[in-house]
Amino acid sequence: MSARPGDPAPPIFTDIEDAAMRLVGVADRTPLLRSARIDEALGLRVLIKAECLQQTGSFKIRGAYNKMSQLDAAERRRGVVAFSSGNHAQGVARSAKLLGIGATIIMPIEAPKIKLDNTRSDGAKVVTYARRDANRVAIAEEIMDRTGAVLIPPYDDPDIMAGQGTIGLELAAQAGEIGCPMDAVFGPCSGGGMIGGTAIALSKLSPGTKIYSVEPEGFDDTKRSLKAGERLENAPGAYSICDALLLEIPGKITFAVNRELLAGGLTASEESVRHAVRLAFTELKIALEPSGAIGLAALLERRQEFAGKTVAIIATGGNTDAAQFAEIIGGAD
Amino acid sequence: MSARPGDPAPPIFTDIEDAAMRLVGVADRTPLLRSARIDEALGLRVLIKAECLQQTGSFKIRGAYNKMSQLDAAERRRGVVAFSSGNHAQGVARSAKLLGIGATIIMPIEAPKIKLDNTRSDGAKVVTYARRDANRVAIAEEIMDRTGAVLIPPYDDPDIMAGQGTIGLELAAQAGEIGCPMDAVFGPCSGGGMIGGTAIALSKLSPGTKIYSVEPEGFDDTKRSLKAGERLENAPGAYSICDALLLEIPGKITFAVNRELLAGGLTASEESVRHAVRLAFTELKIALEPSGAIGLAALLERRQEFAGKTVAIIATGGNTDAAQFAEIIGGAD
Repeated sequence: MSARPGDPAPPIFTDIEDAAMRLVGVADRTPLLRSARIDEALGLRVLIKAECLQQTGSFKIRGAYNKMSQLDAAERRRGVVAFSSGNHAQGVARSAKLLGIGATIIMPIEAPKIKLDNTRSDGAKVVTYARRDANRVAIAEEIMDRTGAVLIPPYDDPDIMAGQGTIGLELAAQAGEIGCPMDAVFGPCSGGGMIGGTAIALSKLSPGTKIYSVEPEGFDDTKRSLKAGERLENAPGAYSICDALLLEIPGKITFAVNRELLAGGLTASEESVRHAVRLAFTELKIALEPSGAIGLAALLERRQEFAGKTVAIIATGGNTDAAQFAEIIGGAD
Repeated sequence: MSARPGDPAPPIFTDIEDAAMRLVGVADRTPLLRSARIDEALGLRVLIKAECLQQTGSFKIRGAYNKMSQLDAAERRRGVVAFSSGNHAQGVARSAKLLGIGATIIMPIEAPKIKLDNTRSDGAKVVTYARRDANRVAIAEEIMDRTGAVLIPPYDDPDIMAGQGTIGLELAAQAGEIGCPMDAVFGPCSGGGMIGGTAIALSKLSPGTKIYSVEPEGFDDTKRSLKAGERLENAPGAYSICDALLLEIPGKITFAVNRELLAGGLTASEESVRHAVRLAFTELKIALEPSGAIGLAALLERRQEFAGKTVAIIATGGNTDAAQFAEIIGGAD
């Protein structure tokens, strides 16, 4: 995997199988949805892995619980700390509740209200900061120094990646059950842990499937890094409606995996993301947050390139405020 | 079952098993969703059978396809006719498309636009009428006289009931898989075919489960009929947001079953229905139409009566226009 010396090794396939065992009864095997009308409209076969229907409304509980359930008694007593734009926050908060661990979560004050509210409602202490002004890492470090709390990182960690990779196990099994081998998988990418973990699983179970990361325009660090062969940062100052996908640079461990296993990096425009949210509402009856719809958005922009193919879309989350969702579905195509 | 002489006999358990075989690859085994936050808020365990995620956006394809796939070659050539407020319409239209049968559907002009559009987009001919002015049965009879088309009734038919009853097979299996025996099942009731078919399945597979029909206030014909022991009509002139649940009187075959097998009939207010739509959006990330949310609405009104119990809710459909959905989720609780 060519991780650098000193970095932890990325997970291997059996780590993902072990994670799946830990997640029984905690994370759901989310359905793989299909719509004949979407397939007909796009001229290809679309499989939607509906992680918006996951416990806590996003896939993040898979990685968080996989890591936190392996903490020892002393670590559990000291508690955990995490920073997150909101979905990892909820995954950590719920895992902490299930495991009886205290949790402090550092979240941007600009995060959707539903993400802030849900994190609190699972009993976590939420510390907010302004994205523009404050350094979330410094805040986390101060808390860890003071309390001895264990950091639960959002992506650049083998146990987190192994947990998210259970999506790949399920995708392979579910595509097999309906007799639809996947030509490609499109998945949102922020730090790269979800798509990387999924790629590790699928490289063994469905080696012919091409895996693509999808990022918002202006936040295409993974796409550019994959092309360059090294980790590149985003220019500051960009804006995206995809509040869960605003990281500056790929993770170290995740990039080592993704450089090896991904077929490439894609982007999607805000207009396509809005279109994808509407389509998922109208045809699939699911509520996706913008970040969760970006895989479908990228496919809407590439229907010709993938004509006749079977493409699985990882629809990672549905934690969207009612006002935002109402505004998007009320728009025109 | 005490159906009257002359009425067709209701389906029996093996008819439902046969229907399930016919539906493989056509209707999905929809997921049984759970939310820790809903359970905690209500003080009971709620299982949501998400039929909004079914092909065509509602359970109706189960019954329509089960009946239509049994038509002989001569009947298929003559085509089918159906009247429906919109979900049965889509089930019939999609089944007709899959089976290569021509379909004419008689729909109220007041039906949600999404239901009219989707019925047409599957290739059916749609004939509209005004609910207040026209007699949909007379329109259907005129078409049948002229073309020889076969009527696909929305509920009062053994094959339709057997198809809808496959929900009961899945409910019993899925509740078993997660180790949650169901104390009660709440399901929407219009003609009574879905809840009746489900009750036939569960009377064998989960005989301890109490099955309740749920109707909108003002359209409680089944509730009153169950109490009276005979089929009673609704007073004309009532209004409900639940556009799929506006029938005047229980079906004959369905009532014979429901009188025998249901524990009782419930109603829910429009306010509770709106609350239930919001809750399903916020906590489960699914889009329910008002009629599909009425089971959850009834439970919201009876949380004390069912405290500590496990209640399965059949969330029958999600065919709601964006404007209506946006208006409802934008409301306050």
